[in-house]
Amino acid sequence: MTLPLDAWLSARRQAVDAALDRFLPSPGPTPPIVCEAMRYTLFAGGKRVRPMLVLAAAEAAAPRTGMAEDEALALALPAACAVELVHTYSLVHDDLPAMDDDSMRRGRPTAHVVYGEGMAILAGDALLTEAFALMAREPASSDPGLAQRKLHALRVVGEAAGAAGMVGGQAIDLQAARTGAHALDADALSGMHARKTGALIRGSACAGGIMAGAAGPLLEAIDEYARHLGLAFQIVDDILDVEGASAELGKTAGKDAAAGKPTYPARYGLDESRRLAAECGHRALAALEPVQVTGQLPAIVRWVLGRTD
Amino acid sequence: MTLPLDAWLSARRQAVDAALDRFLPSPGPTPPIVCEAMRYTLFAGGKRVRPMLVLAAAEAAAPRTGMAEDEALALALPAACAVELVHTYSLVHDDLPAMDDDSMRRGRPTAHVVYGEGMAILAGDALLTEAFALMAREPASSDPGLAQRKLHALRVVGEAAGAAGMVGGQAIDLQAARTGAHALDADALSGMHARKTGALIRGSACAGGIMAGAAGPLLEAIDEYARHLGLAFQIVDDILDVEGASAELGKTAGKDAAAGKPTYPARYGLDESRRLAAECGHRALAALEPVQVTGQLPAIVRWVLGRTD
Repeated sequence: MTLPLDAWLSARRQAVDAALDRFLPSPGPTPPIVCEAMRYTLFAGGKRVRPMLVLAAAEAAAPRTGMAEDEALALALPAACAVELVHTYSLVHDDLPAMDDDSMRRGRPTAHVVYGEGMAILAGDALLTEAFALMAREPASSDPGLAQRKLHALRVVGEAAGAAGMVGGQAIDLQAARTGAHALDADALSGMHARKTGALIRGSACAGGIMAGAAGPLLEAIDEYARHLGLAFQIVDDILDVEGASAELGKTAGKDAAAGKPTYPARYGLDESRRLAAECGHRALAALEPVQVTGQLPAIVRWVLGRTD
Repeated sequence: MTLPLDAWLSARRQAVDAALDRFLPSPGPTPPIVCEAMRYTLFAGGKRVRPMLVLAAAEAAAPRTGMAEDEALALALPAACAVELVHTYSLVHDDLPAMDDDSMRRGRPTAHVVYGEGMAILAGDALLTEAFALMAREPASSDPGLAQRKLHALRVVGEAAGAAGMVGGQAIDLQAARTGAHALDADALSGMHARKTGALIRGSACAGGIMAGAAGPLLEAIDEYARHLGLAFQIVDDILDVEGASAELGKTAGKDAAAGKPTYPARYGLDESRRLAAECGHRALAALEPVQVTGQLPAIVRWVLGRTD
């Protein structure tokens, strides 16, 4: 029986937040200020989209790989926490004055406003580093097959976050913002988003699938699903930046346009952007059909398309 | 037969530099500016101390674990590259205006001077991320025992670089610099150095040992050796900052004292600092005796104590 999405999200978010709290360093060998700065943005009420995708992909893949859903969930939980650490580090660094220069995030002053730029850079570095140490450490096991899957998932997340993925996308964004929104043509715009947001969303779904034993066509279908979902997510994000009020969105709305950043509404207008997002959603669903994988993955598409914050 | 250290260092540095060049991303999926900024500091003529330790520990452990030296070298080479990527990222971020605000490094303008702060932050992020992706990916193998060793080495490097290690040490340094050099007592000073410099030096030696199959007392001896070596390295570094001329050192000399940073000479004076460094060197050598591991590890102690840049 598949839970309604809201109930599933609520239960899984609770599991992820409890695990994040457990996995994060505590004061001791780690200086208290670093612990505090790491937790500040991490526990500021994020939607946990990426961890939800890790877990949904693991649970959806499990019946196809002969794994119990509970086991898949337990094996994928550290990776779910790791991708949220990676995502949070990227927010902390992107908000810095030398990057997007944002003073509000998730409804609170950004980390560098509270802790200073130097400590915010270090907190981001620590979040990123802990993500990989966590994936290497957990789940602890002497099972050789599991060791191979952990390495594979870690590599996928690392490549998604790295120079050809998220960091590369932010670099393109940084350069484009300097030269104006219309400096990127349609291909360059989707290429930037595929790296900046899409890569980690794909990496999240794939890491979940891998930890549940997915490989071959099953893993490829999950990847294809997440590729379309990631683009839908980014288009909706761009639309919300135009439409949203600062208070509701919890970050400075209209900021992208004001900064001359390349966005979908700036290039295509709002109506066409909405149509493009819906089309990406349909493609994500279609990608799952050949392998008959469902679980919460279709509901997550509807959630991403319908979100208002 | 053990090569003279100079010949060994020269051959191994060549192997590491060639591997770094091969493992680093090339323009394509990775934006050219990110590739360029990553390579800028990486190929600016570092001494490659940490990669040398990875390889020396692997080669020294190999005869004790029944592995051929050549095989140990090949298995440890990706980890050797990874620790240099981690070290280089830390230089790029530490040099930022919000941190140590250094404009010269390895005899050239620092990355943020050349590429701007935003791109320097991103280049550091990319170097750190690629380090872990590389260790997860290479050496490619379906050997389950090797997968376990790769995970172990990756975890050790991640924990050394993270919140309880290098990042934590830099955070303590950042806070101490704000309050003046003498704000740290002797224990706090050695605790800062153990994290900021020592942790990655230990992690490097251990990662090399682990890739060569070291465990138990053998791995503990390598760790103990590197713990003392790391402290010797930092004390010598502090001494050179006081004594060195800017041109010879390739970075701004006297900078630590000027910034009111906590250093060994500031706390103990130059002569006592020299004695402390020599004592650490003796302890490093003594740690190897019970397990009769040698190779280049003793020569590296003498190199670290005698270095002038």
